[in-house]
Order: sequence, then structure tokens, then C-alpha cells
Amino acid sequence: MPNSSLSSWNDGAAKSAILDFVARVTREGGPDFVRPEERVATFDNDGTLWCEQPLQVQFFFGRDLLEAMAERDPSLKERQPFKAYLERDMATINDLGKKGLFEVGAAVHAGMTEDEFDAYAHNWLATAKHPKLGRLFTELTYQPQVELLEFLRANGFKTFIVSGGGIDLIRCFAEGRYGIARDQVVGSSVKTRFEMRNGRGELVKLAELDSFDDREIKPHNIGLHIGRRPILAFGNSDGDLAMLRYCKTGQGPRLALLVHHDDAEREFAYDREFRLSPLAEALDKADEYGITVVGMKRDWRAVFEAG
Amino acid sequence: MPNSSLSSWNDGAAKSAILDFVARVTREGGPDFVRPEERVATFDNDGTLWCEQPLQVQFFFGRDLLEAMAERDPSLKERQPFKAYLERDMATINDLGKKGLFEVGAAVHAGMTEDEFDAYAHNWLATAKHPKLGRLFTELTYQPQVELLEFLRANGFKTFIVSGGGIDLIRCFAEGRYGIARDQVVGSSVKTRFEMRNGRGELVKLAELDSFDDREIKPHNIGLHIGRRPILAFGNSDGDLAMLRYCKTGQGPRLALLVHHDDAEREFAYDREFRLSPLAEALDKADEYGITVVGMKRDWRAVFEAG
Repeated sequence: MPNSSLSSWNDGAAKSAILDFVARVTREGGPDFVRPEERVATFDNDGTLWCEQPLQVQFFFGRDLLEAMAERDPSLKERQPFKAYLERDMATINDLGKKGLFEVGAAVHAGMTEDEFDAYAHNWLATAKHPKLGRLFTELTYQPQVELLEFLRANGFKTFIVSGGGIDLIRCFAEGRYGIARDQVVGSSVKTRFEMRNGRGELVKLAELDSFDDREIKPHNIGLHIGRRPILAFGNSDGDLAMLRYCKTGQGPRLALLVHHDDAEREFAYDREFRLSPLAEALDKADEYGITVVGMKRDWRAVFEAG
Repeated sequence: MPNSSLSSWNDGAAKSAILDFVARVTREGGPDFVRPEERVATFDNDGTLWCEQPLQVQFFFGRDLLEAMAERDPSLKERQPFKAYLERDMATINDLGKKGLFEVGAAVHAGMTEDEFDAYAHNWLATAKHPKLGRLFTELTYQPQVELLEFLRANGFKTFIVSGGGIDLIRCFAEGRYGIARDQVVGSSVKTRFEMRNGRGELVKLAELDSFDDREIKPHNIGLHIGRRPILAFGNSDGDLAMLRYCKTGQGPRLALLVHHDDAEREFAYDREFRLSPLAEALDKADEYGITVVGMKRDWRAVFEAG
């Protein structure tokens, strides 16, 4: 057994599955040994590495800029889909879906250069707080997962985020909060245009979606960005199921994991009724597909870092 | 000065520029110090890291499979653009352009799963030889550049390939030949479809282009895959100019370099007349843009690894 620093994980089937898997793939000369360069681990972000309730952080991020824009152009308050965003009209937001929400964000940030976006996002993340929990969003990363990422890297894994959220926003905190470098973040993205502005080459964000990194697109983007089938994958919704199956059906030892949010006391309890990102098929078929379910209530000793 | 193992580089302005730059960005407390996570170096592949004459290796790779297909379906021999490919009809090939050539390759490899492609490409690379130089293509990587990549990594840089060539083919030899991991390769790509085949999740290559990674698309793909502006970039054609300017016009110390193939004796001498990938504007404006020109004849003591 490798040394484990998974102190925020309770003993149980999930923790044992992780420790056993890492021990097997790192045992040189053993039947399940995996060369370090093939130790690829992919993690979803929203709901897997940080809190996604009552809505994905991406939504609050887009809405705050939209509100500033609506001050200057009040007609936005009357136009859909902006109206629903501004009023947090959940029926319309649910109809828009995760992709529709991302498209509103893309429209809101269009015209910014990557450097402007980066500065804006850093400032926003430094002060933006969760509406119910009252803490900074960046403090709502899951402590057991941060420990797991560190544990995997200490055992020669390369850790990646593969998220439906916007790639650029995640990159602004992934290095600091998860120890995951910017180039190891995969997510939804918009097209950009390269142009010279005042003698400086700039990437300008366009309103057009380039890739919406959800469901079957996650394996495609893993192929594009990483070029290797992960041997460990961790998700929390049906949007991650294709990634989990892509991982799990590869040859050799594989571990696919799913967070089940069943802890209304310490975080939130939800699965199939969260319309923007339901967990239903993945939960129903976890046994059949060989996916290890991690119950937040049972398996995590702590949820967030001590405040 | 950091220790240099650039033994295949002749002393001169180019080598000095490299040594000086690396010394400056790694000197802690110095005015030009760059944190290791920001030491991103991007390299074009064809003509910058390995030989691209008389045609890019990608062409020979696609043609060999196309020939096998034409054995089974002789009608391909009469249909353009396949006919030009099979007959190496340079006039038509030049009209197709680099993007057209890549599209033929995409059509040829469509339907393969990523695993099938990987196995096929590894086998091909193990035996395929350059038509004039008589050596394996994989032996035609430039020794000075392999040393430079190692030197940069030894000084805390993260090295990336950003190529117009197919991302999957490059990934099959970049780790072994350049020490560049699969996820640090950016290139042209096709769309894929994720599907379950006999209980196994597979990425199937489609004939449709996803990204043709040339000219202004290179900075876009750097933004997408790396998420950081490179502080060092190295190319050899006008297809790399946007990447070189993107690098060079960033704030802080930057080094942009250009290989000029002026060595007919040891390799090939060409620039503006190579229609598939000309070097003209980048050479004419190198001074104005602050790009360091590396003359193969003058600056490289050796070109290829000793055979």
C-alpha cells in the first residue's frame, strides 16, 4: 500500500478501492503495473471538485457581468435569455439547459481579450461569494478531492480537469486550488480571433461556441487535449458517464468513480431532480458499468476545507 | 549563464540569444525572472523539429494507406484529389495546399478508432524511410533542436509542439524523439465520435476537419490547449508567423526564432518557393518583428543525429 494522506476520507469501500487501485498500478513488476506516462486521471469540476448548487458557479460569474451590462443597456432586462439570467427565473433557466447557460456566458464575454478576461475573472474570484454558504466560491472546493489529487500526483499520475464549465474561468483557480496547471484543464470553450492591437497580438473572444464539453464530447476532448485514455476518471452526473465508460472499458486496470451528493446537512442532497445536470442513468447503472459510487455523507469525513 | 549542452549549435548570435534569454528568465531576483509555470515554449514540427522536404512526412503517411486502399478500390486512382496524391503530381498538390493535403489524410483515416490509428501509425513510423535521404523519418529529427528542448526543460520550461501536422501522428513519436508528452502536442485534428463497440468505448475518427492548426489558428489553439502565451516560440515558415508574433509581443522577456533552411549540402535549401509552406514574410520582416533567424548552415554544427 502506498502512503495515504487521504485524511478527509472515511474508511470504507470507496477509499479502499482508491488505495487498492493506486497500489496495483504503481507496483513495479506486478501484473497491473502502469507506466507513469500512462497514469492519466481526469476529473469533472462542477459537483466533483467544487460545489455546483444552487447553480454552477459559471452562472453567477456570467450574471454579475450581465448585470453591469444591463445598467448601461436596460433593454437586456427585457430580452431572453438574458432576462431569465438576471431574474434567476429557474423554469426558463432549466429550459435553456447547461449549454444554453454557457452560450449566454459566451455572449457576455465576447469581445474581451484573453488577458482582459483573465484579469476580470481573477478579480471576480477574489471576492465572489456563494449565495447560501456565505464563503468565497474558491473556498468551496472539496477537501477530500484536493487530497486525492495530491495523492495521485505523489504516485506518478498526471491529473486533468475535464469540465463542462468554461475552460478559461477554471484555469484562473485550478493551479492555486487543485495544483492543476492551466494546460491540464479541459473545458467548454468559445472561438477566438487572433489580431494585432496596438502592436500586440491578442486573442479576442467571440460569442460563438467552439466546444461544449459535456457527455460524448468529453471523450472527444480527452482525445484532443490529452491523447490518452484515462485509467482513473471521476464525475458526478450523467454528463460524465461517457468519460467514465471511456475510462472503465479500456484495457488493464481502471477506476471510475462518481460522487453522490446525499448530504443536505454539510452540502446539498440532489441527483435526478437537478435538471441542469442530473445524476440518474450513471447512478442506476453504476453496478453494471463497474463504477464506484462515493457517498458524500458516508465517505467524506470533511467536505470543505476548515473555514 | 546556465550550463549549456547545446553542443550541436555553433557559437554565434543565435546560440548567444538563446543562452542569454534562458539565463535572464531563470535568474531569481533578476529583472527578467519568469516563474517556472509561465516558462512555456512552443515549437512548430515540420521543418522546425524534423525534415519537411520534399513533402511533409504526413503526406507519405497518408499516401501509403491510400495506396493500399487503391489496390482494393482502383477507382481512387482516377479520382481527385486522391489521384494527385498517388501520382505525386506536384502541380495539383501545390494547388490543394497544406490544408487540402491534410483533408485527404483525414478522409483516408476516417473510420479508424484512435487505438487502431495509433497501432497503424507506430508500425508505419517503425519502417517508413525518407525517399531521398534513405533514413527512417523518425531519424530525421534535428539534433540541435532535441538538445534545445532538453536544455529548456532542464531550466524549468514546459515544452510544447504546435504543428500544422496531424496531432495523432506526432504524438506517436514526440515522447520518444523529443521528450514531449502526448498532452503537450497541439496540431491539426479531425472530429471524432464516441461510441460503444462490443462493450468498449471507442473514439472513431471522422473525415471532417476539426481544426487546421496553421497561421492565425496557432495562437487560438495555444489559447485552447495551453492557456498561456509562450515566452519562447520557434518556427520555420509563414505558417508560424502569427505564433511568433503572439509570443514576441507579450509583456516581459520573449524570444521568437525562425529556422532558415539554407543548407543544400546537409539538408535542403528552400524558403519562398516551397509553395506548401513558404517562408517569405517572416523572413523579410524578421528584423522589424524582433525574430531571431537561425541559419542552418551557419548555426547548426550537426543537423541530424549521427546515423
